[in-house]
Amino acid sequence: MTASERDLLVAGVDVGGTNIEVGLVDDRHEVHGRAKAPTPTGGPDEVLDTISRLIASLDADPVAVGVGIPGVVHEGAVLTVPNLAGWHERFDLVASLQERIDLPIALGNDANVGLLGEWLAGAARGARNVLGLWMGTGVGGGLILDGRPFNGARGAAGEIGHVVVLAGGALCTCGRRGCAEAYAGRRSMRGVASAMVDAGWTTSLFDIRDDEDKSSLTSKVWARALDEDDALATKLFDTAVETLGVAVGSAINLLDLEVVVVGGGLAEKLGSDLADRIAAAAEPWMLRPSPDLRFVVSELEDDAGVVGAASLARAAIVTG
Amino acid sequence: MTASERDLLVAGVDVGGTNIEVGLVDDRHEVHGRAKAPTPTGGPDEVLDTISRLIASLDADPVAVGVGIPGVVHEGAVLTVPNLAGWHERFDLVASLQERIDLPIALGNDANVGLLGEWLAGAARGARNVLGLWMGTGVGGGLILDGRPFNGARGAAGEIGHVVVLAGGALCTCGRRGCAEAYAGRRSMRGVASAMVDAGWTTSLFDIRDDEDKSSLTSKVWARALDEDDALATKLFDTAVETLGVAVGSAINLLDLEVVVVGGGLAEKLGSDLADRIAAAAEPWMLRPSPDLRFVVSELEDDAGVVGAASLARAAIVTG
Repeated sequence: MTASERDLLVAGVDVGGTNIEVGLVDDRHEVHGRAKAPTPTGGPDEVLDTISRLIASLDADPVAVGVGIPGVVHEGAVLTVPNLAGWHERFDLVASLQERIDLPIALGNDANVGLLGEWLAGAARGARNVLGLWMGTGVGGGLILDGRPFNGARGAAGEIGHVVVLAGGALCTCGRRGCAEAYAGRRSMRGVASAMVDAGWTTSLFDIRDDEDKSSLTSKVWARALDEDDALATKLFDTAVETLGVAVGSAINLLDLEVVVVGGGLAEKLGSDLADRIAAAAEPWMLRPSPDLRFVVSELEDDAGVVGAASLARAAIVTG
Repeated sequence: MTASERDLLVAGVDVGGTNIEVGLVDDRHEVHGRAKAPTPTGGPDEVLDTISRLIASLDADPVAVGVGIPGVVHEGAVLTVPNLAGWHERFDLVASLQERIDLPIALGNDANVGLLGEWLAGAARGARNVLGLWMGTGVGGGLILDGRPFNGARGAAGEIGHVVVLAGGALCTCGRRGCAEAYAGRRSMRGVASAMVDAGWTTSLFDIRDDEDKSSLTSKVWARALDEDDALATKLFDTAVETLGVAVGSAINLLDLEVVVVGGGLAEKLGSDLADRIAAAAEPWMLRPSPDLRFVVSELEDDAGVVGAASLARAAIVTG
């Protein structure tokens, strides 16, 4: 890489519930260097300190920084962050990070930013109407509509996990009853798995968790239990897929989409099988699917958030 | 009106299941003359003959024609028309109508076109993210997203009536189970009302229908039964509103909307009460509603389709 190419590098920052990942990204969306640290649990200032430290550790200086965060984002501020410890109120992240790093800084929601990465450089490249479906602790989502990222009135769009599939059904961690996430989010699935074990069912899920030295049922734990044909894990996963099919079918009826990108840890581990299964589950609910409709898995995997955040950074150079 | 103003008039055509309405519309979206006829049941050619005759009967010659039709529309063709008798296959409406009327012609889906009218000149004027919810024989919808009409990959977007609210629930006329329309479309509601009467319940709905000399349970019949506190009509209508609340809540979680416009015959008759009731029914399902979110009823009523179709006509003058 020449010096002139290095001048074009921006930093993409993906703040997750477990780790913060930072990458140096060029204008072809390629990642040239990475750094990673556990997400601090002490609130916004600790997170910004970690971001600054990770960026300083990269082997080149970026010309701008983009950050994806799991919260509602509007005009450079984070309005709510349900899944990060210590974030209780509105926080002007761009202004605060700029006090530490004197560069153009941009901010986006993590699911929207992840889809941006897949749309610019991954599985949804070139598509005009795309839903991103991220299977994780919860179920997140993002949208590309009419050939551009769609964030909604306040940056809160894309919540495919809180599309209601069975009004009055299972209690969701958001407090409502019948959201897709109540059946397909790993946090909810773990709660049901525990209850089933208490009721006398057997499963290898918790043994695999201990064997893998994890503190929760991660996607790796689920993937291993499914691979080993664990009956309870299979039953819970089937329910998750069926439920996501309903939510995605509703989204397609409302938005007439062309591509559904499935991402998150399970997508990395199960690959295109997972996309095929969700496609099959969605098909019965679709009124008029486009003949061009495709279900694909994330191509960038962990890099999707970094690449998407970097693209926000690149836009921030222009817009200030 | 001067001759130069007349030069700017375009025709908006609203093809409904019952009537075809045509209006002469100026560039301020005002309607200057109207004509109306029952929708022929003999298929596309009869419909085009009626449109041509209605346009010829107007007291000025339009410079372009826009048509809204209850079907999936793509690139000047009608792909499917579930609710018009005699339309069984793809039909090149623009090309065929142009053989009769030598003017620029544009085509849109009726629900999308109705929302376009409300967005340009009615209840959603100036809003950037809008859902139109049309309560009729079925439940139709349209979307304005990021400040422009959104039609999806193939022109099939906006189907709020086929957002699933209770997977596996009531059988919908589309063949799926649990769509909002299965609970809130007048056709489905009539079916349940008949069954309830067969089971011994009493209702004034069918007496009012006869008294009003209607052949079906029109919005006027429903409005009168509700006004007279008919218990069964009230129960069915409450279910419809609750169900629409779930579907609209899901749409808001997915799209972070600013305005929901409620239209159709019942909206005209019940007014803002209907919008308030749907708002109250949707509120419990919303994850993060925008503080600016508003629920309003259609202002243009029957003219929404004509005005929206006319705006398509005006665009067709420019694009050819």
